[in-house]
Amino acid sequence: MASFSFKIEKRFGDTLARAGVISTPHGDIKTPAFIAGGTKATVKALTPEQILSSGAQSVLANTYHLMLRPGADIVQQAGGLGKFMNWQLPTFTDSGGFQVFSLGVAYDKGIDAVSHSQKGDKKNAKATSNQLAKVTDQGVTFKSHIDGSSLSMTPESSMELQHLIAADIHMAFDECPAPLSERSYLIDSLTRTHNWALRCLTRHQELNDEHVARNEPLQALYGVVQGARHEDLRKQSASFLGSKDFDGYGIGGVFEPQEIPEVVKWVTETLPENKPRHLLGMGAQPADLFLGVEYGIDTFDCVAPTRQARNGALYTKNGRINITNAKFATDFNPIERDCECYTCRHYTAAYINHLFRADEILSATLATIHNEYFVISTVDAIRNSLIDDTYYDYKQKFLSAYYGDSYKQFM
Amino acid sequence: MASFSFKIEKRFGDTLARAGVISTPHGDIKTPAFIAGGTKATVKALTPEQILSSGAQSVLANTYHLMLRPGADIVQQAGGLGKFMNWQLPTFTDSGGFQVFSLGVAYDKGIDAVSHSQKGDKKNAKATSNQLAKVTDQGVTFKSHIDGSSLSMTPESSMELQHLIAADIHMAFDECPAPLSERSYLIDSLTRTHNWALRCLTRHQELNDEHVARNEPLQALYGVVQGARHEDLRKQSASFLGSKDFDGYGIGGVFEPQEIPEVVKWVTETLPENKPRHLLGMGAQPADLFLGVEYGIDTFDCVAPTRQARNGALYTKNGRINITNAKFATDFNPIERDCECYTCRHYTAAYINHLFRADEILSATLATIHNEYFVISTVDAIRNSLIDDTYYDYKQKFLSAYYGDSYKQFM
Repeated sequence: MASFSFKIEKRFGDTLARAGVISTPHGDIKTPAFIAGGTKATVKALTPEQILSSGAQSVLANTYHLMLRPGADIVQQAGGLGKFMNWQLPTFTDSGGFQVFSLGVAYDKGIDAVSHSQKGDKKNAKATSNQLAKVTDQGVTFKSHIDGSSLSMTPESSMELQHLIAADIHMAFDECPAPLSERSYLIDSLTRTHNWALRCLTRHQELNDEHVARNEPLQALYGVVQGARHEDLRKQSASFLGSKDFDGYGIGGVFEPQEIPEVVKWVTETLPENKPRHLLGMGAQPADLFLGVEYGIDTFDCVAPTRQARNGALYTKNGRINITNAKFATDFNPIERDCECYTCRHYTAAYINHLFRADEILSATLATIHNEYFVISTVDAIRNSLIDDTYYDYKQKFLSAYYGDSYKQFM
Repeated sequence: MASFSFKIEKRFGDTLARAGVISTPHGDIKTPAFIAGGTKATVKALTPEQILSSGAQSVLANTYHLMLRPGADIVQQAGGLGKFMNWQLPTFTDSGGFQVFSLGVAYDKGIDAVSHSQKGDKKNAKATSNQLAKVTDQGVTFKSHIDGSSLSMTPESSMELQHLIAADIHMAFDECPAPLSERSYLIDSLTRTHNWALRCLTRHQELNDEHVARNEPLQALYGVVQGARHEDLRKQSASFLGSKDFDGYGIGGVFEPQEIPEVVKWVTETLPENKPRHLLGMGAQPADLFLGVEYGIDTFDCVAPTRQARNGALYTKNGRINITNAKFATDFNPIERDCECYTCRHYTAAYINHLFRADEILSATLATIHNEYFVISTVDAIRNSLIDDTYYDYKQKFLSAYYGDSYKQFM
């Protein structure tokens, strides 16, 4: 029976960093690795061949989005997420918890909506103030952002949905409170998240037993550590969940690279070393990638590289550029001269500038390939630097080129 | 010096249909052939590899659009259209005449704007009523649809722009009057189009002499036949232009498949047989393709397959379907079971339905590949049926499946 395992190949010095391999029924993921964002069962603007060419080893979709459209049952009838979207390598699903909570329960509890929505974007803030979601110890009721219909999600239903969607790796259904919530709320929330984690584990194991009976591959479950910016709560969460039979761990509620050396370190020092850790929904900026790996993260996901690409914000070794800027209209070099991505090997900055100005769909495709490749190949290079003991040199060289003098805050 | 030639390989019975090969400095086009629409130096939503996989042998861009954005000089600095867009096979440019005239000069002359804009779409009708373009014997002045700036195009400037853009095959700058214009206007217009054609030819030959001097490939020029629905004008135009040293001929101002057996026939019977004929801006519906070939057309272009694809209207052998229809949400077959296109080999109708409903960019890519493949492979099959003398059988079988009983109007 194909199932899940994790092997550490190399620990780097006396840091928390390690290089390893996650094995799944759909193949291996060499870690540290950046997981491509495929929220709605598509990495926006890319075919699976283009995802592969950007170097991605795995894709992460979202249970909340897929339960609403097309429906988890349809993904199941199609043969699961991978077959549905024609992606043959490993897949993750996030539980949908973060998306449900960003609909408003945090605000309902008097929590700062701007913090909760990470960047304080207006869409989230508006949804929040409409109180579209309500939490009880049983689960969450919320309104669909598509048609306003009333829905609910419980730990059990999240597991059932994720088993229908049938990614290789699932996340437990958790509550993700805003980091500046009052301590009393965070304690209640963490207790709930832990109870939910146990209910997820029970239902997950029942569903895996059914897979065994049907001779289907086993699916893996990560517990999700919360606790905001409180050392005791983070360690309590990592300790509690770390003692349970999860296949790995997600770390939720980390929003800024500056938090990684503290918050992530509290968690990864406490978690069992032999299980993989995924930093949820963050980790596309170079600083995130380096600090995450250094403090014990194995996998990252983030939709920022694809979203920024579609807006013309492209990563280069010397920082981010806006390709729609007029100066690129006559720049017949690639976006980045020594970049090996499909876009840089075949197209000039001038052409991509033209595609953006003419509002052509191909602009999104070419820009997304470049940004995904940039992030993925950076993590791959970090992995290699761990293995050959050149990590600190690589980190200094990379971050100083990208951030200029301000890079020292990340060293 | 690489240059242009056309060879007829097979004439079909006593019809005007023929199979042949157009040779250009960037390779051959086996005819009859459907030329992919690449108006703004991109076939919308496709990479060049995806264009190739849809079977396309050649791409047609538009001088009017490229002169406005990014500018013909930028395309020239990039090494010409093919290098700019990373397309290595043959290319065409339309002169921009049709686009300039659809801005309003026809309406200004009392011509039915709805007829002129083919489908009476509101955008053209509005532009028309604003009289954005004015014609004189010298050329046309018009306002940019992008920024409203005043511009002009003459036969000479169209040639200069097309030589900068440097496609393999150019179209002479012509006036395209509405088909229901008064006869007196059509006669004036045709005289102007013929004078312009001669001026195009002169300037084109001068520019080709410069290419020879710089050891660059020669570019080819097609004269464009007009004359609306008048037999004498069409024959006069074909006879006049046919006696001049053009490399081939475009046929403009044909808007409905029902016109082909008359209008196209008048023209192709009159033109020299040994030069290729391109039906401008029409020819994506199966009836267009069959009737066009049967009445002597060698190449077609039309943006309808890609535009309809982006709206979810997909061609199948049994007629057009709307993939966004709810019944496709649970259809786990390909769009068309025996279709060999990339989309049908790898994706279900259910997945494409999901991508459209979720407003995902990949919907446009997958749908466009299918529609382009459908049209291109149909023309390729027509070509084969000419060569092995099964054309009429193939035509009846194909059109009866596509149109049902109403197919007989095209037989």
